[in-house]
Amino acid sequence: MNVYEDRLARIRREMQRREIDAMYLMMSGDLQYLTGVERQPHNPTDDDKHGDELYGAFLTPEMGPVFVVPRMGASDYVREQTRGSHWIEDIVVIDDGDRPESVASMALERMDFPARLAVSDRMWARALFRLREADPGLQLCNAARILTPMRAVKDQKETQIMREAGRITDAAFSAVLKRIRLGMTEYDIGREIEHQLVLHGGSGVSFHTTVSICGAEPAVDGETVPVQPGSVIAFDFGVVYRGYVSDFGRTVFVGNMTETGRRYHDAVMEAQATAIRAMRPGEITAAELNQKARDVLDAYGWGEYFTHRLGHGIGIDVHEPPFLYQLDDTVLQEGMCFTVEPSIRTSDGLCVRVEDVVQVTPDGGEPFTNFSRDYLVI
Amino acid sequence: MNVYEDRLARIRREMQRREIDAMYLMMSGDLQYLTGVERQPHNPTDDDKHGDELYGAFLTPEMGPVFVVPRMGASDYVREQTRGSHWIEDIVVIDDGDRPESVASMALERMDFPARLAVSDRMWARALFRLREADPGLQLCNAARILTPMRAVKDQKETQIMREAGRITDAAFSAVLKRIRLGMTEYDIGREIEHQLVLHGGSGVSFHTTVSICGAEPAVDGETVPVQPGSVIAFDFGVVYRGYVSDFGRTVFVGNMTETGRRYHDAVMEAQATAIRAMRPGEITAAELNQKARDVLDAYGWGEYFTHRLGHGIGIDVHEPPFLYQLDDTVLQEGMCFTVEPSIRTSDGLCVRVEDVVQVTPDGGEPFTNFSRDYLVI
Repeated sequence: MNVYEDRLARIRREMQRREIDAMYLMMSGDLQYLTGVERQPHNPTDDDKHGDELYGAFLTPEMGPVFVVPRMGASDYVREQTRGSHWIEDIVVIDDGDRPESVASMALERMDFPARLAVSDRMWARALFRLREADPGLQLCNAARILTPMRAVKDQKETQIMREAGRITDAAFSAVLKRIRLGMTEYDIGREIEHQLVLHGGSGVSFHTTVSICGAEPAVDGETVPVQPGSVIAFDFGVVYRGYVSDFGRTVFVGNMTETGRRYHDAVMEAQATAIRAMRPGEITAAELNQKARDVLDAYGWGEYFTHRLGHGIGIDVHEPPFLYQLDDTVLQEGMCFTVEPSIRTSDGLCVRVEDVVQVTPDGGEPFTNFSRDYLVI
Repeated sequence: MNVYEDRLARIRREMQRREIDAMYLMMSGDLQYLTGVERQPHNPTDDDKHGDELYGAFLTPEMGPVFVVPRMGASDYVREQTRGSHWIEDIVVIDDGDRPESVASMALERMDFPARLAVSDRMWARALFRLREADPGLQLCNAARILTPMRAVKDQKETQIMREAGRITDAAFSAVLKRIRLGMTEYDIGREIEHQLVLHGGSGVSFHTTVSICGAEPAVDGETVPVQPGSVIAFDFGVVYRGYVSDFGRTVFVGNMTETGRRYHDAVMEAQATAIRAMRPGEITAAELNQKARDVLDAYGWGEYFTHRLGHGIGIDVHEPPFLYQLDDTVLQEGMCFTVEPSIRTSDGLCVRVEDVVQVTPDGGEPFTNFSRDYLVI
């Protein structure tokens, strides 16, 4: 039994336990997790091909997954992705002439008219309306309740891929630092990062690369400030590698480092190190871990500069549950992966960022990116 | 009354006419159209901040729009975007400690407990579940039915911005052609396109840039083939400029052009020109226009190489209704904008692409990109 057969068997047992008759997932991290078929990266603005609202796959405890795929721009891709995947039952292609209401009816019929259907967390309203028009009595629920806990714990193969994504990220960052020159803008540096991530083996970025140059003169007329002596450059970027992602942050000081900068830097790194040490299975919740890092910065009197959650789950998607914040009482389990990013923005406009993807292990957290956390002065 | 007040007044009249009590839109092209608040570009993989499923705005015929905005990564952005926008009633910030179910209840209460709520076409299932948990009797319908016909017809200001997006696209393409050298890969050229689009004033790409090098030796081991004498390069890319987009295609022949290439090229350009001439208001439907271009290629015996729809509506999003294909019987109206792209991929592996955004006018279609449609040989 390979990894996808195993995951499909687990999801089917869980469906039966919860009296869910069928599941319809859009192209998503969930579907990649279950079948190995990667979603194509989102475009910056909305695209919409005929049948897109039903683009995905359905399954029941007895049958499927059956993929439903728009002809245009998707069917060749899915056929390529599913080649040799004997755990996939069928691919139904939606032609430009097919009415979406008929496609919805076909799907419900092949699912043997489920009473209770679990759908993707982000399934489009349009898709739900189509399905409810085809069967007005259909009860819908969120498939994430089953899939989220499964995806949160990364197995050995996933861990290996995510470690490699981390290695690519470290290597790309190292190459970028060697290429930063006075006068470069945030845009120039961002472009270099994205290029180095691809050169080092990534297939693209996991989210929009953010480079913030602060600590020197303020922006004029919305123009970004170029690198100059005294600049502080905060990085936040990540790569996609074999369907898994990284998310990484560091802070680089140009020319010299002020005493204040050094103190902020020390505090942020101490907060991160404290959190990483505490990432042991069964011993701490997501909310408690968040509080632990916050306590460190509070002790310095800088808690108010740390304005966001400590981190987020990560894997196929850049943000996945669980989340390291006060409302999430998930107990950390071995194999879970989180970003740990107690970054601050101070009242005098300095950003100190650090971020690494860290896995929960019995010996405490194991970071997948290992670029130096010491002072980085270029 | 400015453009947003006017659009909000129109949408409210339409809601009353259709007995829709309230509307909840996610951050989307629809919400930009109604309020001027631009959605941030989608990330390639899913991101998820606390409260993201309710990130958007709601309104009724009597009140709103009220924005609902996650604190993290969104509230500063929306405050900046809404500065001076007196047609926006309020901004409610979702803090990390706020329970989403309370936010959903707050929203329904402020909407005065609607019986019938219109939601975004792509509203997340998770958001709909939240709203239905807060009010199990809530009736939901698709807001696209009202918004789609409004957005399809571009007013003078939108037309001006889209013309400028076209001008940027033409200028960037011209700069790219001067920089193509033997040995460049699809990736190299794509990177140059994206750079030139930004240098010429764009804020980013509207969809993933596609460069296909065909006509020369086939790819080995999944490596892309670099440009060589005899290559045929098909381009498909677009820019975002002030919240509106372009979508553009051409075909470039490297070194020389075969007689066969010339004949395919002529046929594709004739199909496009025929369609553009026919784009007069009130005289033709989307489906008929699609057929008109198809007839030209059919007459050459190459209809089977033209495997997708003739084009799609375009504006804030790269694909918007109406769509130029057999199931869409929308009658073309003055001000509507479509891509016209009767591109072919022949059985011998040659791609001939052409694509321009074209507006419907009483004198026939007016293209917003005007780069030469003659043979392009470099």
